[in-house]
Amino acid sequence: MRSSTKQKRSASHVSALADPAPITLTTDFGSADYFVGAVKGTILTINPHALIVDITQEIPAHDVECAAFTILAACATFPAGSIHVAVVDPGVGSSRRAILIRTGGQFFVGPDNGIFSYVCDRSSGSKTELGLFHLDNSEYFRHPVSQTFNGRDVFAPVAAALSLGVKAEELGTPISECVRLPSITAGVMRKGGIEARIIHIDRFGNCVTNITPQQLTAEMIASGAQMKVNGKVVKSFRSFFSEETGLRSKIFGIWGSAGFLEIAAANTSAARLLKAKRGDVVRVQTKQ
Amino acid sequence: MRSSTKQKRSASHVSALADPAPITLTTDFGSADYFVGAVKGTILTINPHALIVDITQEIPAHDVECAAFTILAACATFPAGSIHVAVVDPGVGSSRRAILIRTGGQFFVGPDNGIFSYVCDRSSGSKTELGLFHLDNSEYFRHPVSQTFNGRDVFAPVAAALSLGVKAEELGTPISECVRLPSITAGVMRKGGIEARIIHIDRFGNCVTNITPQQLTAEMIASGAQMKVNGKVVKSFRSFFSEETGLRSKIFGIWGSAGFLEIAAANTSAARLLKAKRGDVVRVQTKQ
Amino acid sequence: MRSSTKQKRSASHVSALADPAPITLTTDFGSADYFVGAVKGTILTINPHALIVDITQEIPAHDVECAAFTILAACATFPAGSIHVAVVDPGVGSSRRAILIRTGGQFFVGPDNGIFSYVCDRSSGSKTELGLFHLDNSEYFRHPVSQTFNGRDVFAPVAAALSLGVKAEELGTPISECVRLPSITAGVMRKGGIEARIIHIDRFGNCVTNITPQQLTAEMIASGAQMKVNGKVVKSFRSFFSEETGLRSKIFGIWGSAGFLEIAAANTSAARLLKAKRGDVVRVQTKQ
Repeated sequence: MRSSTKQKRSASHVSALADPAPITLTTDFGSADYFVGAVKGTILTINPHALIVDITQEIPAHDVECAAFTILAACATFPAGSIHVAVVDPGVGSSRRAILIRTGGQFFVGPDNGIFSYVCDRSSGSKTELGLFHLDNSEYFRHPVSQTFNGRDVFAPVAAALSLGVKAEELGTPISECVRLPSITAGVMRKGGIEARIIHIDRFGNCVTNITPQQLTAEMIASGAQMKVNGKVVKSFRSFFSEETGLRSKIFGIWGSAGFLEIAAANTSAARLLKAKRGDVVRVQTKQ
Repeated sequence: MRSSTKQKRSASHVSALADPAPITLTTDFGSADYFVGAVKGTILTINPHALIVDITQEIPAHDVECAAFTILAACATFPAGSIHVAVVDPGVGSSRRAILIRTGGQFFVGPDNGIFSYVCDRSSGSKTELGLFHLDNSEYFRHPVSQTFNGRDVFAPVAAALSLGVKAEELGTPISECVRLPSITAGVMRKGGIEARIIHIDRFGNCVTNITPQQLTAEMIASGAQMKVNGKVVKSFRSFFSEETGLRSKIFGIWGSAGFLEIAAANTSAARLLKAKRGDVVRVQTKQ
Repeated sequence: MRSSTKQKRSASHVSALADPAPITLTTDFGSADYFVGAVKGTILTINPHALIVDITQEIPAHDVECAAFTILAACATFPAGSIHVAVVDPGVGSSRRAILIRTGGQFFVGPDNGIFSYVCDRSSGSKTELGLFHLDNSEYFRHPVSQTFNGRDVFAPVAAALSLGVKAEELGTPISECVRLPSITAGVMRKGGIEARIIHIDRFGNCVTNITPQQLTAEMIASGAQMKVNGKVVKSFRSFFSEETGLRSKIFGIWGSAGFLEIAAANTSAARLLKAKRGDVVRVQTKQ
């Protein structure tokens, strides 16, 4: 990437305005109903200059883990100041809290049900300061607050307020803990290997594990590391999907774009071939 | 919600520009073809600063009633000046008129086939002035006008012109009537009850009725109101989806986010359990 | 359409800023994963004022021809300066080149696999100058460049740079050829007819041919032109879908919104009735 100085200079002739902070949306609302539109209208009523970006509205209904992975993978490319709204919220209307997390220069707004767990895990790993807030200042909500649609009435207006420069401390009360899913940073090292799991399966059937390049090094792969999942052994690794490796194996390991090792298959679904589902254990045996 | 004065003040440092009027899109074009892109390109060619917002492109093909509900529910959150384009248009190319409706400080642009009926119903209920226009000034169309794609060649350029400040009176001729669907405001009161119907079924299978909180009051519910739909009786009411009511009933009434009573089911589709479809009669028996 | 002078004048009071050049996206990423979000975040990190427009993310996986048609049909409505990013890229990570095409005042960024073929065909037909560039200046890429996700790491940052005013010559090296699909401009004239093919089937089952109004004139249709596809003869032509022609034929020819003759059916899928698929030959017999 070019130096950010150069980028700023190039951009400066386009506009003298402050850069808008994007507000991203990750939900299980689907695209067919009016829900997403209502969220966007609420944001634009409060901040008519808001820059709203869809990550996806197609998280499977109530699938908090899928949303947690999607947010982790998407937020990495966004600029500082970005505001990520996530609404997969089976407990809407109950006593579950609405929260705001400030970490790595970005903001995360949604229900306190673990949906930002993986972002928190990554922050912890990098010693980034984590600011947690309980969104309890209803002055910033849309009223009356529907007990079935906090996306529109709580999270959207809070995100819009953030985009206008309202401080986290004004929006809620600092807290010390939030709900967490099992850690994504595991990949526990055992004697001669790594014990990991599948944390996501994408639409192509690629199985994303929680193994990072720090854990499974190029040297380990070169010296014959093997993966075992659901009783099947995967020995092949590729650096890109259509690579000709000379091996007959259809299934192979590949470094995915989210920064994790993935198990993929040539022109088909690895998940189907392996009968794999999220949570399945992946054992890597290294020869060191 | 915070006072709008405060919001305006907060926003003022962000930009001195006039607030852009969002142009929303509600269509049955689907997301897979080039149709939506062509509409957006047309708008941006006329107004490069247009703020375009997708409500949905997934209205079932030719389902004008579904679009009418979606627009009603979505437009409520948008700011004054918003321009709502709706294209579910089986009569495209025929003599059906293109219309513009101005009501409640917002604009509605689309075919004259009832698609804005529910918005008109609500306006009538609130005594808001309704401005109706036949879009017959082809100076504002994209030429040549395709007889199969008025979304691109008529509705998009008219919406773009509106967003640039062109007046409704310049775009068309005032008219006194437009095509209307059966009224959504019914919920006819009968002796000891309300006769209503299902006006929409959402992707979760929630059945939206046309019953409002003004018709079915909290007192009526507290004193034992019952709903009957397709021969089944629903006695349970919840204030949020995951509420523990102590009742074994899977199916319950709940105030939905669009401002109507919905019939929902715990973690499943109420529509499937009730074999309900849009238009089915819902009878509410109150004990007053 | 109104004169562009008038439009510019109308727009001028809205903003004194340079008009933003839209960046459009046409991909097979689908809408459920984080991929599209990651592309958008990358663009906004480089140009926070970028105007990003989804054409579609629902191109069938690896279907380069479908993408080629979609881009051709969509780009026609976009303003000069628009930047069209297309990513259907089964060869990602291999030695296939990344390219930039400048034609008709617009830019096209994507893999060199034929995805911009139809745009090039149309440019050739209209004698527009075609600028071809191999995107080999990695200074403008996002690093490290993933070998599985060039959409995020190559095409997005290059498009963002273009939108900031970086010249094509700075981004890559001029080349003289790029990969081309079979020409879309064919419709070879034979004695007494046109030999054409189906180049696209849309979601409604309409079969788009590569026949243009220049090839099949109104006179030819009026004097009894017939189409033959998969052994079936189509003699009826309509000017809009719901037109009453007095003929009993369910299947008819109609000028589609992309500028080609389409074979459609009344309220059903012509493709299904004709058992037609993309590539099928369409022979038009004219009586001249």
